[in-house]
Amino acid sequence: MEIKIKQNVLQANANKAQELKKILASKGIFMLNMISSPGSGKTTLLEKTIPLLKSRYQIAVIEGDVESHRDAERLDNFGVQIASINTGGSCHIESVGIEKALNSFDLNHLDLIIVENVGNMVCPAEFDLGEDCKVAMLSTPEGADKTAKYPLLFREAKLTLLNKIDLLPYLNFNKEIFYQDIRNLNSDLPVLEISCTTDQGLSAWINWLENKIKNKKTKKG
Amino acid sequence: MEIKIKQNVLQANANKAQELKKILASKGIFMLNMISSPGSGKTTLLEKTIPLLKSRYQIAVIEGDVESHRDAERLDNFGVQIASINTGGSCHIESVGIEKALNSFDLNHLDLIIVENVGNMVCPAEFDLGEDCKVAMLSTPEGADKTAKYPLLFREAKLTLLNKIDLLPYLNFNKEIFYQDIRNLNSDLPVLEISCTTDQGLSAWINWLENKIKNKKTKKG
Repeated sequence: MEIKIKQNVLQANANKAQELKKILASKGIFMLNMISSPGSGKTTLLEKTIPLLKSRYQIAVIEGDVESHRDAERLDNFGVQIASINTGGSCHIESVGIEKALNSFDLNHLDLIIVENVGNMVCPAEFDLGEDCKVAMLSTPEGADKTAKYPLLFREAKLTLLNKIDLLPYLNFNKEIFYQDIRNLNSDLPVLEISCTTDQGLSAWINWLENKIKNKKTKKG
Repeated sequence: MEIKIKQNVLQANANKAQELKKILASKGIFMLNMISSPGSGKTTLLEKTIPLLKSRYQIAVIEGDVESHRDAERLDNFGVQIASINTGGSCHIESVGIEKALNSFDLNHLDLIIVENVGNMVCPAEFDLGEDCKVAMLSTPEGADKTAKYPLLFREAKLTLLNKIDLLPYLNFNKEIFYQDIRNLNSDLPVLEISCTTDQGLSAWINWLENKIKNKKTKKG
């Protein structure tokens, strides 16, 4: 019975996600869904990303947290629209939460929406939120074996960010295993090595985002 | 409806957990349930812990993984009984999985069972597995704000391990905030600062474990 109920939940979520995709397509808004463990550096990357893009693009952020609103508070002074989803103990965001967040935004003046999912590599990978891309983030201290341990995320993702690359000298992180596992799971998945401490790789990340935003605008309607 | 179903799932899980507690009490076996994000260092700590205890105690390990059996394989040559629970995509272990694992062990010759839960700070905290203690692990690269963001785990835990303490000089980890948040959530929660790279704090961890094992034996039956 539990499996049947889960299928129903996933189906209802997918139906709502399809509705949201149509709305975002009609407005030409690119939406990405960032997924990682707690503490991989999602919010810190947003703190770096927003100032680099906001003079050229209108941005909104949807923050998912289990109980607190700490991540949303960190972005309060960045001059972008923010919607905070408190999941009330649940380990992932569902598309019905995104619908409410979109209703709180002025969609006629937005180019990019970044969803920062709940810190968790398992369930968020199962839920389509109507996004254009899932972006998987792994930070080097978590270990090179995590792609093979949480394969669904890396199969679903359109980009992987390998964060905290500046910590490599102090860690026992086997890059060869990391890239080998990525290739086995999803041979087309691009990987960007980044650091929000040294800013390594951030320009490549910004280029990737800008291409996606422009591409979505071109296909508007 | 979804909430009702979740309550039923949690109730069935709790009932089974009560049965397991009785079995473990009758055998005088201490069981702990280790919970953290992916990559905090749970398996590495087991690789350090088992050799320090196995001459004096009979140990078994229950490994929970979403899809792979990588963690169980890492412990294959450590000379302890291992049961591997593949959760089939689920983000936590439930007590029915522990029951199967216990059935595969020789419970008459065991002192300690360590459950390594699925890497996730959210749902594993909700599920009683019949354990004596939940142990929460946080590694310093994850950031000092994680206790307040995942409060249930730190309310439920009987011990917190702050791991990868050797990386502090390379990180922006605010220890004051970390301890303040811990005190606010659970004023009695002991914290051990450890490193599996430098072995800092491991003797305190082993002492904590030995006290618990001996205490459980004394109360046997």
